[in-house]
Parts: sequence; C-alpha cells; structure tokens
Amino acid sequence: MNAPIDLVVRNARVATASDVFDADIGIAGGRIVALAQSLPKAEREIDAAGRVVTPGGVDAHCHLDQPMAPPVRMADDFDTGTRAAACGGTTTVIPFAAQEKGQSLRAAVEDYHRRAHGKAHVDYAFHLIVSDPTPHVLNEELPALIAQGYTSFKIYMTYDDLKLDDGQILDVLSVAREHGAMAMIHAENADCIEWLTKRLEAAGRTAPRFHAHARPMLVEREATHRAIALGQLVDVPILIVHVSGREAVEQIRWARGHGLQVFAETCPQYLFLTAADLGVDDSYQGARCVCSPPPRDKANQEVIWDGLSDGLFTLLSSDHAPFNYDAPEGKKPGGEEVAFRHIPNGIPGIETRLPLLYSEGVLSGRITLEKFVELTATNPAKAYGLHPRKGTIAIGADADLVIWEEREFVLRNDDLHHAVDYTPYAGMTLRAWPALTLAAGEVVWDGRAFHPRQGRGRFLACGRPTLRPPRRS
Amino acid sequence: MNAPIDLVVRNARVATASDVFDADIGIAGGRIVALAQSLPKAEREIDAAGRVVTPGGVDAHCHLDQPMAPPVRMADDFDTGTRAAACGGTTTVIPFAAQEKGQSLRAAVEDYHRRAHGKAHVDYAFHLIVSDPTPHVLNEELPALIAQGYTSFKIYMTYDDLKLDDGQILDVLSVAREHGAMAMIHAENADCIEWLTKRLEAAGRTAPRFHAHARPMLVEREATHRAIALGQLVDVPILIVHVSGREAVEQIRWARGHGLQVFAETCPQYLFLTAADLGVDDSYQGARCVCSPPPRDKANQEVIWDGLSDGLFTLLSSDHAPFNYDAPEGKKPGGEEVAFRHIPNGIPGIETRLPLLYSEGVLSGRITLEKFVELTATNPAKAYGLHPRKGTIAIGADADLVIWEEREFVLRNDDLHHAVDYTPYAGMTLRAWPALTLAAGEVVWDGRAFHPRQGRGRFLACGRPTLRPPRRS
Amino acid sequence: MNAPIDLVVRNARVATASDVFDADIGIAGGRIVALAQSLPKAEREIDAAGRVVTPGGVDAHCHLDQPMAPPVRMADDFDTGTRAAACGGTTTVIPFAAQEKGQSLRAAVEDYHRRAHGKAHVDYAFHLIVSDPTPHVLNEELPALIAQGYTSFKIYMTYDDLKLDDGQILDVLSVAREHGAMAMIHAENADCIEWLTKRLEAAGRTAPRFHAHARPMLVEREATHRAIALGQLVDVPILIVHVSGREAVEQIRWARGHGLQVFAETCPQYLFLTAADLGVDDSYQGARCVCSPPPRDKANQEVIWDGLSDGLFTLLSSDHAPFNYDAPEGKKPGGEEVAFRHIPNGIPGIETRLPLLYSEGVLSGRITLEKFVELTATNPAKAYGLHPRKGTIAIGADADLVIWEEREFVLRNDDLHHAVDYTPYAGMTLRAWPALTLAAGEVVWDGRAFHPRQGRGRFLACGRPTLRPPRRS
Amino acid sequence: MNAPIDLVVRNARVATASDVFDADIGIAGGRIVALAQSLPKAEREIDAAGRVVTPGGVDAHCHLDQPMAPPVRMADDFDTGTRAAACGGTTTVIPFAAQEKGQSLRAAVEDYHRRAHGKAHVDYAFHLIVSDPTPHVLNEELPALIAQGYTSFKIYMTYDDLKLDDGQILDVLSVAREHGAMAMIHAENADCIEWLTKRLEAAGRTAPRFHAHARPMLVEREATHRAIALGQLVDVPILIVHVSGREAVEQIRWARGHGLQVFAETCPQYLFLTAADLGVDDSYQGARCVCSPPPRDKANQEVIWDGLSDGLFTLLSSDHAPFNYDAPEGKKPGGEEVAFRHIPNGIPGIETRLPLLYSEGVLSGRITLEKFVELTATNPAKAYGLHPRKGTIAIGADADLVIWEEREFVLRNDDLHHAVDYTPYAGMTLRAWPALTLAAGEVVWDGRAFHPRQGRGRFLACGRPTLRPPRRS
Repeated sequence: MNAPIDLVVRNARVATASDVFDADIGIAGGRIVALAQSLPKAEREIDAAGRVVTPGGVDAHCHLDQPMAPPVRMADDFDTGTRAAACGGTTTVIPFAAQEKGQSLRAAVEDYHRRAHGKAHVDYAFHLIVSDPTPHVLNEELPALIAQGYTSFKIYMTYDDLKLDDGQILDVLSVAREHGAMAMIHAENADCIEWLTKRLEAAGRTAPRFHAHARPMLVEREATHRAIALGQLVDVPILIVHVSGREAVEQIRWARGHGLQVFAETCPQYLFLTAADLGVDDSYQGARCVCSPPPRDKANQEVIWDGLSDGLFTLLSSDHAPFNYDAPEGKKPGGEEVAFRHIPNGIPGIETRLPLLYSEGVLSGRITLEKFVELTATNPAKAYGLHPRKGTIAIGADADLVIWEEREFVLRNDDLHHAVDYTPYAGMTLRAWPALTLAAGEVVWDGRAFHPRQGRGRFLACGRPTLRPPRRS
Repeated sequence: MNAPIDLVVRNARVATASDVFDADIGIAGGRIVALAQSLPKAEREIDAAGRVVTPGGVDAHCHLDQPMAPPVRMADDFDTGTRAAACGGTTTVIPFAAQEKGQSLRAAVEDYHRRAHGKAHVDYAFHLIVSDPTPHVLNEELPALIAQGYTSFKIYMTYDDLKLDDGQILDVLSVAREHGAMAMIHAENADCIEWLTKRLEAAGRTAPRFHAHARPMLVEREATHRAIALGQLVDVPILIVHVSGREAVEQIRWARGHGLQVFAETCPQYLFLTAADLGVDDSYQGARCVCSPPPRDKANQEVIWDGLSDGLFTLLSSDHAPFNYDAPEGKKPGGEEVAFRHIPNGIPGIETRLPLLYSEGVLSGRITLEKFVELTATNPAKAYGLHPRKGTIAIGADADLVIWEEREFVLRNDDLHHAVDYTPYAGMTLRAWPALTLAAGEVVWDGRAFHPRQGRGRFLACGRPTLRPPRRS
Repeated sequence: MNAPIDLVVRNARVATASDVFDADIGIAGGRIVALAQSLPKAEREIDAAGRVVTPGGVDAHCHLDQPMAPPVRMADDFDTGTRAAACGGTTTVIPFAAQEKGQSLRAAVEDYHRRAHGKAHVDYAFHLIVSDPTPHVLNEELPALIAQGYTSFKIYMTYDDLKLDDGQILDVLSVAREHGAMAMIHAENADCIEWLTKRLEAAGRTAPRFHAHARPMLVEREATHRAIALGQLVDVPILIVHVSGREAVEQIRWARGHGLQVFAETCPQYLFLTAADLGVDDSYQGARCVCSPPPRDKANQEVIWDGLSDGLFTLLSSDHAPFNYDAPEGKKPGGEEVAFRHIPNGIPGIETRLPLLYSEGVLSGRITLEKFVELTATNPAKAYGLHPRKGTIAIGADADLVIWEEREFVLRNDDLHHAVDYTPYAGMTLRAWPALTLAAGEVVWDGRAFHPRQGRGRFLACGRPTLRPPRRS
Repeated sequence: MNAPIDLVVRNARVATASDVFDADIGIAGGRIVALAQSLPKAEREIDAAGRVVTPGGVDAHCHLDQPMAPPVRMADDFDTGTRAAACGGTTTVIPFAAQEKGQSLRAAVEDYHRRAHGKAHVDYAFHLIVSDPTPHVLNEELPALIAQGYTSFKIYMTYDDLKLDDGQILDVLSVAREHGAMAMIHAENADCIEWLTKRLEAAGRTAPRFHAHARPMLVEREATHRAIALGQLVDVPILIVHVSGREAVEQIRWARGHGLQVFAETCPQYLFLTAADLGVDDSYQGARCVCSPPPRDKANQEVIWDGLSDGLFTLLSSDHAPFNYDAPEGKKPGGEEVAFRHIPNGIPGIETRLPLLYSEGVLSGRITLEKFVELTATNPAKAYGLHPRKGTIAIGADADLVIWEEREFVLRNDDLHHAVDYTPYAGMTLRAWPALTLAAGEVVWDGRAFHPRQGRGRFLACGRPTLRPPRRS
C-alpha cells in the first residue's frame, strides 16, 4: 500500500457525490492513493488548476456489439464504444450479455466475453439479459453467474424476443432476492404496443413518428405499476430503467411513499428530445430518434429534470444503442425505409451523456455538481456493486478521472468518436467537455485526441448492490 | 496551505455522505489537509484501526440557554450543551437566537452572543427566530443579519409568543427568497391546538398524555400543507422541521411530486418514542416526553424510518430542548405538576442523536453509513451554509471527526453530559458510541472523559444554503 | 289528502334525479298528487307533449338584497331576484341572512325577513352567515335558529368583515355537529389574498384582471385543505362552496378517499368563464366578471365538468351576486373605476343557471338529464333540509315544475328579468329555455311573460340535511 | 295506455334512487301506471301501510346453471336461482352466457337460452363471457349479439379457461366502444396467483385459507390499474366487478380523478366477510367462503362501506356462485377435500343481498334508502340497459316491487330458497326481510311462501347503458 505516487493531478476542484473541495490527487498503480492540500512533485503531473475534476462516468446502461437479427448490426463494438465513452468522460461501461431464447445464459456470457476481450479501452462489467428463465437458468446458471460477478440482470416487459410474462418475472425476481442481485426492468406493456402498432399499420401510419403513437405514456405507466407490484410481491428492490415522463414518475413516487424500494433510471433523451424529434411529418429522418420509450414532450422533460434534482432518479445512463442511420445494417434495414415497427430501436449517446448533463444540469443551475457525480458515477457504481472501486474520487478507488473544461461550442457528430453516423444532439450548444479523461491513471483522452490502447479495459466482477444496506439485525 | 501535518488519524474507515474507504487522515492547524493510503508519521497520532470515522455531527436544531418565561429555565447553556454534544459526537451546533415580540432582532442576536461567548466547547452558528416581523425587521435587520452570517430563520405556526400569521409568514419568506436564506417552519395549527386544549381542560383531561390528544396528526398535516402553499406562493424553498409521521410526510411527498423545493427534518423522538411514552394513565411521568409535535405510534415510526432511507428526509436533528423533569424551573414549573398546557415543551437529545441513529439505523441495516453521514452532518451543513467547512471529511474541512466504537451497553442518564436530569432513552440498549471526538483537531471526548476547553467553540458565520444550486442560467 | 286534481300537466317527459319517464302530472292545492299514464281531464290543463319536465330549480347559493357597505347596493331584491329565478326555472331560493360583526344573529334574521316579506314570487329559505360567533351566538342563538328552520350556515375564510379564524370555525362547526346543521365554507386564504393584493397595488396593478392574480388556485387549495381538516377534527360534514378548479377538486377527492364527508358545490362561472373574462388588458370591462374565487382556465373548466358527471360535485348553484356594472352603487362604487380590491365581488346568474347547464350539460351529452335534476334541484333540497317537499317530482312534493323548450337563441341581457345591467353570458348561444315555470301549481313564467304575484313566495323552514343518513345504530 | 288499474299497493312509503314519498301505487298489465296520494279501489289491493316499498332488486352479477367442468355443477339453475332471488326481493337477474374457448359465442347464448327457457320465476337478461375473441367473434358475433340485446360482456383477467391477454382485452373493449356495450372486468393478475399458488402448494399450504394468501390485495390492485389503463387506451368506460378493498378502490378513485369513466361493483362478501372466514386453521370448513377476490379484513370492509355511501361504487351485486359445500359436485369435488386451487370458486348470495344491505346499510344509518335503491336496482338497470323498465318505481316501469318488513331474526340456511346447502351469513342477525315481492304485478313471495310459476320470468333484451349520456354534440 505504499507504492510511490507516480502521478499527481494538481490543484483540482474535486467533486464527489457529497462534496466539492480543492486538492491535489495522488495516483499510484492506477489507483488514487492520496488527496491533499499539497502533494510533493511526482514523476508525472497534470495541472487541473481552476478546473472541476469528477470521477470518470459509469454508464450503466449501454449496448455494444450486442448480437442482432441480420441484417441489423450495432455500429459500436467494444473498441469504438469504449473509445467514445472515454472521450466523453466515461471510464466504466456495463453493456448487456443477452440470452437468446433457447440459449444457455452461460453461453451468452461466454460469447460476450469473446466480443469484449482485448478490445475495450476502459473497464467493463456485464449485465445479463434473461430472456428464457428455464429451471436450469433459474436454479443453476443465474446463481452461479451472480456468484461470479454478474450481479444484475435486465427483464424486458416488451419486445417479442426478449419479453417475459409476469410469472417469469416473478421467478427471476425471486432469484434476485435470494442472491442479492439487482433487477432492472424495461417497463412497457407489450400487448398494448402490438395492438396499437397493428392499428396504425392498418391505417397506413408507418412513418417513424408513429413509433411514439404506438407507445403512449400510459403503456409505460401501466407496466411500471405492474413491475412495482411484482417487486412488491417478491419483496425485492427493482430498478426501472429509462423512465420517460410524468405518469411513470408518479407510479414510482407512489411506490416510495408506500415503503417500497424502487430505484429509477433516466436518460438524456428524456431531458433533451421530444416526440417531435421523431418527425412532425412522415419524413424518415425521425428514425434517428426512434427509441423506447419514446421521448415525450416539454412538460415531461420538466418532470424528469425535477426528478433528477429531488432524488426521484437514482441514476442517469445513456441507453446507448448504436445504429447507423443511413445504412442497411442500421436504421434502414436492408437499405429500405421501413415501417416504424422494423426500425432498430435506440439512439447513440455514450459520449454525450456527461457533457449534456454537465452543461444543462450543472452549468444551468438545475442540479448541484455533487448530484451530477451521484447520478452519473457514484450511484451507478453502487447500484451494480462496483463502488467504491468505481464511481468516486476516494482513497483506494481506481484513478478514473475527468477534468472538465467549460467552453461553449456547437456539437457536431464529426466531433464524436462512436462509429455511428449521427448524433441526435447535433447542433446543440454545449458549454463543457472533458479536457482530459484518465482511466486507471492512463490518459485516454486529452481534450483533442483519443489515446487508444485496446485491452486496457478490464472486465470487472460486480459485487452486491450497495444503494441500500443489507439488513443486519 | 502547506502547514506540516501535526496529527494523523491512522487506518480510519472513513465515511462521507457518498463513500466509505480506508485512509489515514492528516490534520494541520485544525483542518484536514490529507487523506491517503499511508501518511508519514506525525507528531500526534491516533489509531483508528478497524473503526469507522465519520464527520463530527452537525446538530442543526437544538435549544441552548434560550430565554424562557420564568420560572422556566433551560437546563443546558452553551457550556453543558456543547459538552454533551461533543461527548455524543456532535461538533457543530446551531441553536436559536429568538426574538421576543416587541424586541429588535439584532438585540436578540447580541444577547445570544453574550450567552454563547467564551462558553462553547464546539463551534456554533445561530438560527434566528423571527416572532415580530415589523417593517424594520423585514427591511433592515433581517437583510443585514443574513449578510453577516445568520442565513436561516425559524417560523413558528404555533405557540402564542412566537407564532406568525400567514401574512407575516409570507413577508418573512419573501426576505428568505430575496436574500437566499433558509426558512425553517414549525408546522402545527395553533388554533386547532388551542381549541382542543380548552376542550380537554374543560373535561378535566390535563395529564401529560393529553398533550398528544391536543395535537393530533391532522393539526400537523394541515399546517404542513399550508406551509407548503405559502412557500409555493413566494416561490422559495422551505424546510419543515421535526416531521412526526405519515400525514405530514404525504404532504411533503405531494409537494416534491409537484416540483416544489420542500426540505424536511425529523428527530430521534419520532423514531424511538410513541404517544404511549407520554403516559397511558394520568401519571405525571409522561411529562418527560412532552414535545411538539408529540411522538405518534409504531406505524408512524416506520414511515419516518422509510423516509430516512428513501430521501424524503433531508436531515435528522435532535430538537434538544433541555428541561429538568423534577425541578421547579423545568417540567414541574414552580414545583407543581401542572396541566399539560403548561409543561415546558421539549426533550433532551443532543448527545444521543448520533449513537441512536448509528445503532438502530446503520447497525440494524436500515440505512447505509453514507446516509447516516448525510443526515447527521453533511446535509445539515449544506442546508445552513456551513458546508464544506463542516459536515464532511474532505480536504480543507475542519478536523471535526468521530471515531466509532461498536459495543453494546444499556443507556443511563448518568452516562450523559447534559445538565438534564433524565433522558427519554434510558434503558435502551445501544450498540455504538463515539470512542473519540475531535473538534478542529482537538480531542474533546476520548471515549471515557470529556476534555473541556470553554471558548474553544467558535461562532460560525453561515453562507448560503447549498442543498440546491442557485440558478445560473 | 283527497283534494280533487285541479291541474294536469299532460304528456310530460318527467325527469327526476333517478329516472326519466312519461306521465301525466296531477296537481291539487299546489302539490303533486298523482303521476299516471293517463289522468282524467282536470279544470286546468297544460300540454307538455314531447317536452321534458323537471323539478323547479333550487338555487341554494344566491345573494338578494343583502346589506352592503354604502354606496354599494345589490341590484336585486326579493322581488326582482325571485322574478328572475322564476323566469329561469328556479322556484326555490336560499339567500343569506348575514350577521354583521357585533350584531345579533337573530336580529340579522329578523331584518332579512323584513326584506323578504311580501315580495318574493317563489318560495325561499335562509342560510345564516355567522361572522361573529360569540358565546351567545354559539350557545343560544344558533341552536334556537336551527330549531326554527335555519339549518345551514356559511363560514367565510376570507373577507375582512366576514371571515372567521380557525378557532372560530371549529366553534361553529361544533354547533353544526351537535345540532345537525350544514356548514357551508367559502375556502380562500385571506392572508394570502391580502398579501398579494398589496404587492399588486404597490406595483400599480389594480385593473380588474389582477383580481385573478390576487387569488391564484393555491389560495383556494390551501383553504380547502384547511377546511377539510377542521371538519375532520370536529367530525362533521362540510360543504365547500363555489369550487373553481383542479387543485381544490383534488383536495376534496383526497378527503373522500379518506372517508370524510365533504360535499362540494360549483357554479356556472367555473364552467363557462375564464380569467380572461376579467380582462386581458387593463380595461375596466372585466369588472363585470370579478367574483371569488375567480374563474380559472379552460383546463380547469374541464375538471369541473368531469366533477359534475362523476359525482364529485353535490350541487350546482348560481352564487348570484347582483351588482350593476355601470352604476355608482355597483361595480363602479361612487361612480369611479376603482382598484380591483374595491370592486364589489360577484356576478349575476340566478336566471341563467338552469338553461346554461341544460344546454351545455344535457344537450351536449356531458351529463344525463337525471344528473341535471340532481345537481340543480334534488341535492340542493337535500343538502339543506327541503327535500322531498322541494327538489323533485314526486307525490306530495310542491308542484314546482319546469317545462323545457329546446330552441337555439343568442342570449341578451334584455331577455333576462333581473335588475342587473349585464349578464356575463351575453352573446352565448343557448339551446334550451323554460317554456313554463310552475310554482306551487301557479304559472309564474309562460315562456314569454312573467306572471308576478308578490307574496306568493313563502318562507320555508328547513329541516335536517338528508344527503347522508343520520346514524341509527 | 289506459288499461284499468288491476292492482293497488296502498299507502306505500315509496323509495326510488332519488326520493322517498308516500303514495298508492297503481298497476295495470304488470306495469306501474299510477302513483298517487289516493287511488280508487281496485280489484286487487295490497296494504303496505307503514312500510317501505322499493323497486325489485336487479342482481347484475350472478351465476346460474353455468356449465362447469365435471364433476363440478352449480346447485342453482334458473328455477331455484330465480326462486331464491324472488324470495330475497330480486326480480331481475343477469347471469352469464359463457363462451368456452373454441366455442362460438352464439352457441353459448343459444345453449344458455335453453337452460333458462321456461324455468325462470323472474325476468332475466344475459351478460356474455367472451373467452375466445376470434376475429369471427369480434367482427360478427359480438356486434350481432349486441344489436339483439346482449349489450354487456365480462372479461376475465384470471382463470385459465376464461382469461384474456391484454391484447385480447383491447380487442374486446374496442367492440364495446364501437357498439356501445358495457365491459365488465374481473381484475386479478393470473400469473401472480399461479405463481403464489405453486409456492404455497410446494410448501404444503393447501387448506382453504391459503386461497387468500394466493390472491393478496396487490394482485387485484395491479389488475385494476391495468384494466383502467386498457380502458383508457381504447377510450371506453369499463366496470370493475367485485372490488374487495382499499388498494383497488384507490386505483378507481385515481382513475376518476383523471377523468376516466370507471364504474365499480362490490358485493356483500366484502362488507360482511373477512379472510378469517376462510379458516384460521387448516380446517376445510372455510371452503364455503372461497371466492375471488377473497374477502379481506375489517379495515377493508370499512373502505368498501365508505365507497358505497360516497359514490365510489356504482352498484352492489351478489356474485352468487352456487356450489354445495358437502357435495361431490360442489366444494368437495368428487367427494374429496381438495387443495384450495381446486375448490370451486364462489359463494351463494342471491337471496341475501338486499336484506343484508337493508339491515346493515339502511337501518344502521350507513346509507340512505335512496342509495340502497340506487345500488341494488336503479344503477344495475342503467348499467346494463334495462332502465327505466327495470330498477325503479316510475310510471311505465315493470311492477317489480318489494315491500319491506323490519323485524329482527337470526338467519338460517333453512330459511333460504336456493338449492345450496349453506349460506356464509348463517347466524347473522338481520333486521329486515321482504314481506312481499311482486314481479310484473304478480306476488312471487308473500313473506312466508314462495309462489312459483316457472316461465313467468321473461328474457329481457338489453339496450345501451345509460349511466352516462352518449355524447350528443
């Protein structure tokens, strides 16, 4: 524990989820070993004078190189995805090892390791997607995988190839309860969506904007209420992912008011986009912003902002789902402009998540700097058992740091480092961007250039969630 | 900034509101100047091996040597009050400079400085109690006092000598809004209490237990709703003090759900006492637990616990109101067992606040250690403009620290250091107590003995609250 | 009981609060004595073929010849007020005998009888306004008056000359509880209104439209919550008058959901007017629509409509408050255009209440015909102890009937029979108007002409409210 | 229309859903043709002096001779079922023509007509149970059947052989919307029940009382919220049947507060039974009270009572489901004491519904007599398109009447006229029972004896629901 300090980040305005203070940060062997008013000169020095330094972001909801039904293919793999993450200040990603129905969950994990191995520029862990909870999966695979560091799984209430019925959800939640894992739930009512989609299709309403018509707020509200009820029945915490607006927020608030442990995630698309971004006419351009749940309206954006500042939301993730717009393997499958049902769901955002929230949250005075850190780093790390190694600036934590530069510029997709041909936020004026990203003490982004080193990113075995204490007595 | 480290707290398990990590804590000139895996040997060393170290508590709601109508007198002054605080791990207190009706607020502050000066063993700031918001007070005194570091004031909706009407409350809240001060509100409906009290008295129901009958939950709920409405009208945050149970909690949750900034405080009495502690028969013993609002029942305790863990409550204070039980200047005014209306309101708790929450909150697994720090130190400091100097363990903060010892013992009033002849928690089994309290680097309590130094406590001028950001753009 | 039928209303489509059916209506001695498929020919016959016949309206909230501070004077006395009522289908009115502070309540009642005696064209009862609940009033006058048929009283939470504080309200509610009277509450927070008014005045914002700024929804919401709490404390039903929009409605719904008996009234102004009718610029024209609470917006109108159809509202009254617009004794006191604070509050509506609701409620398909009868006649009669003599078409009930003609016309004030120089609804297209009004079997309006007979209207002693049963066991 | 009056019910205290008044009731040709203070002597006379006369009850939720999987068989067919109904004051029943999966709905209706034809002693209509909404059913059969007078259908969210998935429910609701039919929904979450049942069975917890453990309140709450959302999506009113307690009530109240048309039914079992009636030990006796949802506890009973009086509930039905207790075709299928999953669901109550509510609702002062009529007769008739022919005492209505006798007695199953070997209410002291029931002017029960005439009961083609108006403009 007394490795000599090999790097000092000097004169930092350090921000954690609870505090902001001035200090030098001493790093040895890729870990933070000292915080002090003044540290002796080290071999390497980085000057952060006058600048805020936050923990590297933990993006707890992103999709990278996830197997898709051909011709669709994700544009970002672990190489380009973690490259983009790093350039935007994110130093830990948690994408999804997705079980196909009929497939072993273990096999899905092994396959996903193959996709990640030797490619990632920043550290990564895996969530599991459980799409086929057979007795073998429930009784053997899941418990074993949890013990090995895959301590969170995602449950889908929609999408034909992924969704579980309520009984299956109860089964999976029971495993989460017994083994202390965290259950993430995508809450939309599949039947309602299918019913509306068919009606819209029958009426020839297939343009991208009808995606939002097929998934009105109430289908999210209903599923959120149901997910809460299922968690309550099993007596296990749940985490509702990508909450989009008021009606779902009200259900979560209701649950909290009844003593239930319901955590909640939201994403930048619900702060910055609206349904109008899916198109106001039948143009296909809006396909870029097709994601689920769809963005709502300005009033719902306000509700989401309120929820960020008042504690309703536990974390903010990107839900990065990287599909090219103008590509046969992307938003135009096979090269066609397809009905909204067939447009690959999701938008890219792994690189813009932190700068967007820093600019419009912190610098606009909507949230404190501490809250920024909590939502983007500390709580994601706690929710999935990576804290305190990840998600904070503290003695013993990995030296994953972001030095912020406050400057105004107009965002262009060319500035970004993902492999996607667009960003939905192009044209927005941002007021901050990472001047430097350190991953385990290595500079991966220096404000102008990315410093690649594939394989630098390590797989992280997750522990138990620590958002709430395990009952001791 | 490069004073040499004069004290190291070694091998601490440091807890902040966001993190728990192992570090040595380096102190120089009474401030924390280094946190590190390993610090060089210093002149003074304290071994914290295997022990949790938290920031010294900030008790943001306590009454010390506050002028009372004779014969009643508070048992604790700044000497004994801060002595008790220190022995229980609290290193900052914020009692109340109370304006009498007709009196200048400035005069109240000056008088209170005289009472504090040279007596306190730990640092202190003042809240103001505004009981007579004349134009002079509103336009001259309050703005001047806020500028000088008295940035919070308490508004009473009950008690004849203190209460403001709704119009006066709006006036005071307007000052809070304009000058960025924090308004604390004691929310109980005075008329309802008076009306019920008279009815109870007419029926001969004057024993202490009828105090709870005179202040049912609904009188708190109503006033809470009204306080929220008044804050909403002025568009200013408010902080509801000593919230006692479900109905008030629901109002606060409602307000949050409508985007209003309503902060909330609770106290140990609402976690550990019930109305039954005021007596189940007409015995006078229950006078000990007469406080307002009164403790409720077990179901309400659960609601308060839920509110601590889920973010409903911003902070936990003691509302220490030190009156002897068996004394003519205390709970038996003039030596008599009086009707409940005349029993001095309040219970002592400045010393037991932290150990109670540590034992029953942290060690029972109801809240995390981080939440403990947030509720008892960080958020109180932020709410009243003392952060980051107070309320955390960070570079530059005052070296106010508590080293915790986990051991089981039965609490007796003789163990305590206040000047009050009872504690309502006598007989409870606690599982933790401070093994050491440091105030600005000085040992004030070593686990066995108090180390007095009157005058060590400094007056702290408060800045703006930092729970929420001031809007920047 | 076997007086011969002297009048038959033939072939009526009879509507009650529960049923609509075809029948002949037989009347003897001013009462309904028979309903039948076919009655023998009588001395007098009225043909109602193809027409809906409803009970004569009961306007349970209207102001007639109520003493005002000079120079202000109400335009309608019992002559013109009941004339207008009759022509609009209302055959029972319940105006207010208002106690002045310092005055005996009995004296107020006697004075009001003098104002009514020999003048009214339709029957009338009195509500009491209790503005000075002295012990004599509470213990002597009120109980005696209740016993004599004055079984309802109105409590004001605003207006300096009328308002009670919370303690006084509890006192009055206790009398209501003990003697089975009905308490009506005008719920607006006086202090908030005064505070806002002063601010607006200080800013020179005194045009009529600022009346709505001085009474935002939250001042009504707050007072509604408080009124509910006070009723809950005393354990007595209350009736919130003239509810204007969503926030108050939500409080009432909350109360019902907690098992509290809270009745609610609304008025046409909250269905048909908005704050824009008070003016969009500083013109004085908007003074016409100055009433309290002020009309809100379209979204709030929808909430009120929903509340009418779903049972939230118990009754619909006019709150007729007849002040001339262009008159020194009216909306321009002393002949001046005054600051909004000094504009006499209230708008006329005694004659238009039923046709407005019939046109826009029944004929637009928003409410059933049964609901129309319930809201305008049956429930007002039940709420104030006049049922089943008033408010329905049933054997033994007074022969107060309205035959409706469905025809479209544009409303002009010249068509009306009040003594007020305007109606806020001028220019609206209505689709129905009474073709005939019978009061105790006498034709008072025949669709073209009013048939005056001053003194025909009788004073009605009210019994107990019958909206809810008195507990029997 | 001028058939001579052939029967007079003299000196009745007539109660409708809006009024109570004294009158003679004149009947001709089985219909009410006159209500009058005094009618001439008729051929037949019934003296009702001093007695309340209400409309014959409409039991809108009861099961008679419904095909079951062998060996289970319903004890009551149209003969014994309508006999019991008549003796308890119910003169119209609406049982269910249940489609089996795979079966044509038309065939189910025809079969059910065969079961009813020539047997019923009182009039009857049919609800449809749609268990297999094929395109043919949705597009052909349902529209045709609605046009022929089958204007309501029940949707099950639970029971394997009946339940629809959410998409099917939307399909059926769409038909209801397009054709103006009323959709009744049994709201319990099937998956949750199955999951809990399996767990209980695995733990050997199969006694009748575990039926309540398998269907906790939250499974009803969840399904209620979902049903509301589905109705909201289609924009159609729905009617939630047999609501059992607070959590479901809160969802319905929430829906109303959001402007949704959600009607609600409850049943006597939720007013008078608790889960304890299913057994406190593992005795099989509790099988008698196995029904779904299960009865809850005393606190939930209070919520249901509150909902009856405050308008939350639209109607009260029996949900009569007649299975013998001690019989191989009943609660002991094949003669065995079976696991709770296999116990036929439901309890008898067609005869006791009205007397229970009259005794404990009206005579205890919990509801008015008008409300009694509304809940048991008028609203059921309106909800299902039978009003004003059924459900009221008005000119032109069928002469279905109940004359009430107030007398105290202890209920025994031997007193009842169903074919079931028990009543769950045996041993209760009732305070009222019909002294006479008239069905279309015929005496079917005279207070001592039943007057059978199989075939007297006519099939009623239902019209549109009239609880709310169809929008006209």
